[in-house]
Amino acid sequence: METTKTQVDLYRRRLLAASAGGAAAAGLAGWSPASLAQAAGAKPLPPFAAFKDARRVIVHSASGIETRRSAFGTSGITGKDILFARNNVSPPDASIVSNPDAWQLEIDGVTNPRRLSVAELKQIGLASVSMVLQCSGNGRGFFGHKASGSQWKVGAAGNTLWSGVPVKAVVAHLGGVREGMRYMTSTGGEVIPAGIDPKRVMVERSVPWTAMEEALLAWELNGDPVPLAHGGPLRLIIPGYYGVNNVKYIKRLAFTPNETAANIQSSGYRVRPIGQKGAPMQPSMWEMNLKSFVTSPSGEEGQLRAGPTQIHGVAFSGGSPVSAVEVSLDGGKTWRAARFFGPDLGRYAWRQFVLPARLAPGSYEITSRAIADDGEVQPEMRVDNERGYAHNGWRDHAVKVTVA
Amino acid sequence: METTKTQVDLYRRRLLAASAGGAAAAGLAGWSPASLAQAAGAKPLPPFAAFKDARRVIVHSASGIETRRSAFGTSGITGKDILFARNNVSPPDASIVSNPDAWQLEIDGVTNPRRLSVAELKQIGLASVSMVLQCSGNGRGFFGHKASGSQWKVGAAGNTLWSGVPVKAVVAHLGGVREGMRYMTSTGGEVIPAGIDPKRVMVERSVPWTAMEEALLAWELNGDPVPLAHGGPLRLIIPGYYGVNNVKYIKRLAFTPNETAANIQSSGYRVRPIGQKGAPMQPSMWEMNLKSFVTSPSGEEGQLRAGPTQIHGVAFSGGSPVSAVEVSLDGGKTWRAARFFGPDLGRYAWRQFVLPARLAPGSYEITSRAIADDGEVQPEMRVDNERGYAHNGWRDHAVKVTVA
Repeated sequence: METTKTQVDLYRRRLLAASAGGAAAAGLAGWSPASLAQAAGAKPLPPFAAFKDARRVIVHSASGIETRRSAFGTSGITGKDILFARNNVSPPDASIVSNPDAWQLEIDGVTNPRRLSVAELKQIGLASVSMVLQCSGNGRGFFGHKASGSQWKVGAAGNTLWSGVPVKAVVAHLGGVREGMRYMTSTGGEVIPAGIDPKRVMVERSVPWTAMEEALLAWELNGDPVPLAHGGPLRLIIPGYYGVNNVKYIKRLAFTPNETAANIQSSGYRVRPIGQKGAPMQPSMWEMNLKSFVTSPSGEEGQLRAGPTQIHGVAFSGGSPVSAVEVSLDGGKTWRAARFFGPDLGRYAWRQFVLPARLAPGSYEITSRAIADDGEVQPEMRVDNERGYAHNGWRDHAVKVTVA
Repeated sequence: METTKTQVDLYRRRLLAASAGGAAAAGLAGWSPASLAQAAGAKPLPPFAAFKDARRVIVHSASGIETRRSAFGTSGITGKDILFARNNVSPPDASIVSNPDAWQLEIDGVTNPRRLSVAELKQIGLASVSMVLQCSGNGRGFFGHKASGSQWKVGAAGNTLWSGVPVKAVVAHLGGVREGMRYMTSTGGEVIPAGIDPKRVMVERSVPWTAMEEALLAWELNGDPVPLAHGGPLRLIIPGYYGVNNVKYIKRLAFTPNETAANIQSSGYRVRPIGQKGAPMQPSMWEMNLKSFVTSPSGEEGQLRAGPTQIHGVAFSGGSPVSAVEVSLDGGKTWRAARFFGPDLGRYAWRQFVLPARLAPGSYEITSRAIADDGEVQPEMRVDNERGYAHNGWRDHAVKVTVA
């Protein structure tokens, strides 16, 4: 799915509907002509994300809000007031979060398919997980070919706490997955305006069905009911998988023999050479790769003062867990071992690292590279691809600072 | 220190100062006659804690705000919008948090005593810890003798993330603790109104000096700069110790041969028989005892519906870590093993537990008891004491519900 084009399409259709005297299409809150016009200039927070701290985020558009590198802090958890938000389609009406327990989920591809409310899901089981939520395009702003989409740097990622019911507990409750099902396919509750082919815009994602082992149907984020901006009342959480797979306002969870034919799966979120169109045989944006970045210095402080400092950042992986982090002050010529600090929140969370250093006056290119349990080392370079996905190259993520 | 009397004294003195035409004493923000009058009725949030979620807290007074049992959720961390707040003396003016890096801390009882700004402390080291912050009087509302002070039930406690510099790193930076020092004595930045003997009202607490091993000087709470309501710009954090020892707006940290003579130490926060006055030989409120409580059901839901449910809560200890939790549905006649869930945030954090149960119509007395690594079991009964401190008896903490 070419998300930007889709957004423009939606906007155009809304204008057409309005000019034809039709009622405004449902589900387009935040996409009024006024809010789009504002987004071109000062870029205020869209209404569904008005609770965010405008000073600590970057508003790329009404559907793309990024955490500033300087805002992450050192507590290990990314608060909802700074957590990035990204929507492929406008969120549903806010009324859906007024009574979260009433939200209905259809479950299919199991022995006893049925519809369950959140209240019923809460009876089945309870689990909580800390995990990195990261947009597939995080780091897109570092690519050289002007990849289409929000020009995220490091902040389309955050470490979050989710609670809900394990998908496998729900599946067991319904008699298990039917034979022959190879994918877990989830459908978001976005309202598709009439007149648009749903396949083109619907948020429906398939992942290997084994991902259900660690997945949650979550109603709580960082201690609060999941807000609309982050997929409330109910969001699918697949630890270790890129954001798009963590389907918001989930209304259907199905085990299926094949991947969905929705564009967002068949051609969207595919890693493909620059200039090529998306297609089902290209790699899908599923498990996140090994990555780290420095959060302080952030490059937003201006010139630094010479003397001792604590260089810190975060490291994470959707695969083999992070076991060490090294930091370079000279753009990768030399490396020093950093130390982890703070609680270990589990293998899908990010781990905070720190390196004490004494900076003399001069110029520095400060970056980090993570090392995984299986020996993999975070690479130096990005892999160029059409949509600017999966950037984990440490060189582009470096912070350049001058010390006086 | 009889905190309630002191508050009344402060209020009386302010009225006297006002009636004598004097300027209002500094440092009494939130203690205006108007706010005290309101507190007697509808009890609105005091100005320094206006950011809290009024629907999810109980305002006992302008200096005592409690988290509702139903508000804790299942994410393991207690957000600042619901975290309890308790002040012995009104907080300093909010201007002290406008530039946290400029706050000054005097450090004494070390080889090279000196004054360090928060900016300088940030150069020395960085650590982060999750810990339960709990008021000594949490559970006071369950005592039978109308112990003086806020009538907290379970919610004068929360699990929090703090980051800052380890005290031991600062001490090493200053040449180590001088010989013969047996206490770490910390002084809060509260403004003591003129005409009051500082010893009577100052917040100055001593703990065994070995507590420095795990202590932090913290500038960040749950990802944000520490707000004034929770001791910003700089708070002493002593994992495992009751709230009062975690001195807010800390302005002096000294290693001393003796405990401070301040009333809050010498006679206040002492466990003593009902009717006795406080004195230095009585046990001081230092390390927290072994405790757990159920957070759902909370008793705030009204009548429950029969069927399957997930009973959950939290368990913690300032001493030997919690290793197991049992839950009883019948007021302690029978017990079942609960399961921990969610990340293990470390030995000073609380651990979440859950027990799936099927409730038939009837009456239930639902409670939990924690078991520590060293074999200690959370006791059934409270230990009665004058000020209602250190309540960890599981019987009083039970939730009584009816199921229809």
